[in-house]
Amino acid sequence: MNRDSTIVAIATPAGTGAIAVIRLSGKDAIPICAKVFMSTSQAKQLSEQPAYTIHYGKLIDGDIIIDQVLVSLFKAPHSYTGEDIVEISCHGSTLIQQQILELLIRNGATLAEPGEFTLRAFLNGKMDLSQAEAVADLIASSSEAARRVAIEQMRGGFSNKLKNLREKLLHFISLIELELDFSEEDVEFANRQELHSLIESIGKHIYQLIESFQLGNVIKNGIPVTIAGKPNVGKSTLLNRLLNEERAIVSEIEGTTRDSIEDVIHINGMLYRFIDTAGLRPTTDTIESLGIERTYIKISQALIILMLIDSRDNVDDNIKEIKRIANKLEANQKMLVLINKIDLAEPSHVTELKQSLFKKIPSISLIEISAKHGINMDMLTNEILKKSIPTSSEGSSTIITNTRHYEALLKAHENLIRVEKGLKDSIPGDLLAMDIRQVIHYIGEITGDITTDEVLGSIFSKFCIGK
Amino acid sequence: MNRDSTIVAIATPAGTGAIAVIRLSGKDAIPICAKVFMSTSQAKQLSEQPAYTIHYGKLIDGDIIIDQVLVSLFKAPHSYTGEDIVEISCHGSTLIQQQILELLIRNGATLAEPGEFTLRAFLNGKMDLSQAEAVADLIASSSEAARRVAIEQMRGGFSNKLKNLREKLLHFISLIELELDFSEEDVEFANRQELHSLIESIGKHIYQLIESFQLGNVIKNGIPVTIAGKPNVGKSTLLNRLLNEERAIVSEIEGTTRDSIEDVIHINGMLYRFIDTAGLRPTTDTIESLGIERTYIKISQALIILMLIDSRDNVDDNIKEIKRIANKLEANQKMLVLINKIDLAEPSHVTELKQSLFKKIPSISLIEISAKHGINMDMLTNEILKKSIPTSSEGSSTIITNTRHYEALLKAHENLIRVEKGLKDSIPGDLLAMDIRQVIHYIGEITGDITTDEVLGSIFSKFCIGK
Repeated sequence: MNRDSTIVAIATPAGTGAIAVIRLSGKDAIPICAKVFMSTSQAKQLSEQPAYTIHYGKLIDGDIIIDQVLVSLFKAPHSYTGEDIVEISCHGSTLIQQQILELLIRNGATLAEPGEFTLRAFLNGKMDLSQAEAVADLIASSSEAARRVAIEQMRGGFSNKLKNLREKLLHFISLIELELDFSEEDVEFANRQELHSLIESIGKHIYQLIESFQLGNVIKNGIPVTIAGKPNVGKSTLLNRLLNEERAIVSEIEGTTRDSIEDVIHINGMLYRFIDTAGLRPTTDTIESLGIERTYIKISQALIILMLIDSRDNVDDNIKEIKRIANKLEANQKMLVLINKIDLAEPSHVTELKQSLFKKIPSISLIEISAKHGINMDMLTNEILKKSIPTSSEGSSTIITNTRHYEALLKAHENLIRVEKGLKDSIPGDLLAMDIRQVIHYIGEITGDITTDEVLGSIFSKFCIGK
Repeated sequence: MNRDSTIVAIATPAGTGAIAVIRLSGKDAIPICAKVFMSTSQAKQLSEQPAYTIHYGKLIDGDIIIDQVLVSLFKAPHSYTGEDIVEISCHGSTLIQQQILELLIRNGATLAEPGEFTLRAFLNGKMDLSQAEAVADLIASSSEAARRVAIEQMRGGFSNKLKNLREKLLHFISLIELELDFSEEDVEFANRQELHSLIESIGKHIYQLIESFQLGNVIKNGIPVTIAGKPNVGKSTLLNRLLNEERAIVSEIEGTTRDSIEDVIHINGMLYRFIDTAGLRPTTDTIESLGIERTYIKISQALIILMLIDSRDNVDDNIKEIKRIANKLEANQKMLVLINKIDLAEPSHVTELKQSLFKKIPSISLIEISAKHGINMDMLTNEILKKSIPTSSEGSSTIITNTRHYEALLKAHENLIRVEKGLKDSIPGDLLAMDIRQVIHYIGEITGDITTDEVLGSIFSKFCIGK
């Protein structure tokens, strides 16, 4: 990657639209554009125009007019990349977009690699690495919650605090290293008490961030919800009802195993991945029991399990399955038992059924619904929302969604514990400094103060071209 | 359609990209945007900023930050629509695009109908109707030739001249009507000689435009080329070879009959629609003979027929088919006989075959090729290009591609002939004026000086939203 080059890419989504935007960045962005741009006011020289201005004219390839365009100018360092930027707004035919791209390449620009604009922004100090990563997350965000977390991170919400803590650690390191220079005199420039409270506060902050990752991960990828229950209890009807009730943006994403397609629903800005399951029933059929085995696996992967029962059933028809699932739940998993088809049952029977269930499993969460007629769906979605938020992260405003950050935080935390122990054991300053350096290193990995070409390559290769 | 409203639409192609642009137009474009935009320099008031400037800041929905955006300002009448325009460049997540659209609608904007921006440009006198239509053609253009014709038309290349001619006719009408006011005195304000040469020159120009429509139509929709020949003579190999040789942008479009898929290739910026055919051979099979019947229909629809024969065949194996097709050719249809598989035949045999063909059909166009080995493909594509340009339109620089224009021109021409005849017969001024008014009317239909809501509706409904 040659940072002296001027890069170019189509920045708008692929395809035909009213307009498209082609973006140039680099020291020759304005001269390259000027070679092929003719302003409607003939005398106008693009290079003499101020930043943040827009100019109307035609793009020409020799005698041929390629398009009538608007050209927007941005000048270093006050631009997205920190370099000179030209944005060309053209008619959105794919042919024209392609022709302009080729024209600019023929006139000296280089086709940008994925994420190269944002990489340059990072390398030019316009944003730190976690902010750059948030740009990609923001573009990919498909739920309100994911968008909010990404924009918070892009605006430096979580890295600014980390950078600040890292600065403080660097200050202590310099004091400790000063001590080492004066080691014969046995002085203590670095106040161990202060260092200890700093380490404690950093530890607490990083622990909160680590804790937030579970929520962050489900925000980014969707909260897995499994709908279970006996055959014909209304699982598909419930799913369809949820889709309709929420007037949701619905799409299909491939599950982790390629053969399963999952339904994705937004409820109040959170993304939910609903996982289909085979109906649960005692069987001697080998194939069917395999399907049921898979259902239990899917239940184990869900954060929320919606267990449907028929309101006309008796408690004994279902209690075994409910108990079986309840006993297998992990601490972060929640089960909600839905008594479906209440429009078909005697109210007195439903009351009796509920009471029996409460008696057998006092901690049970129960809602009576009719998926078919949309009864109590508000109550259900509220309950799903309530069960979605991991309690441990309540009160923490910053949320980690990135596995790379999570892993660096885990390592930073590990080393913080060693620093804390070292302080307690009053270990020598040079050993203490080594552990603190490790903490600084891992925090630096998140913000990009410490990075390698390999890490950058892997981060930016996931970007789209043009960003 | 309420022209007082401020309209909004996503202007960039649908989907996810690095950036997307949302466009507002109307008298409240700037105030609506100002309600939800917070500049990074807090004190900045959007409404006080000059036109053609760009502003960085965040879009907010109450306390929630929706995105960091760039806002571009254009002010009436110096904008695309002739109204105030704001373009918001945001991160290209479909969610964010949708949220910004909704935010602006909640703050007073109306979702634009297809083509409404361009319709306003037309209604505000920023362009005439044929220019507005060219905008849609430009965005839809998928070949270099179509792009050139559209941009020429969008820049007023053909309507300016028509408008000028129409002005001259209006001038004559006023003179003739003056004569009618003084009818008792039998004066002639309108010089009949001058009128006659004007009518002649308009007639010539309009006839050229009408003539150009055949070329214009194939430029817009692709030149139909049928590859015919006996089974296994190499038709598919030739098609694949053409696709590869030209490193063409290849796509599939549906034929006029829904069941046939045609291959589309660009050669030197012209679009060709290659039409598959069943192999031609004598058959008694009913189904197969139906297929062959269809082949003859497809041959009749083509402008260029590539007739493939095997270089190892004798002249008698093919002459009947070649003659049959040659005899059915219309004046605008061209046949090219391709002697294929020359790598497999004795050169002396090929020479003999060629001589026999020339002897039997002296006007025949012949090329020896090997589709498999790519021999003489340059010669073939050159020949296809040569045969693509209708001779009658050579020298005429302006090309009509629009059926609506074509029909109006035909009617204008019809009335011009009546005017010419009227002049020759020295008919009374009031009758002459009536015919001239018809010509003026039909020319006005093209430029949009004469139009109806129905016509506008049908034109702009074909636009994409956001343009």
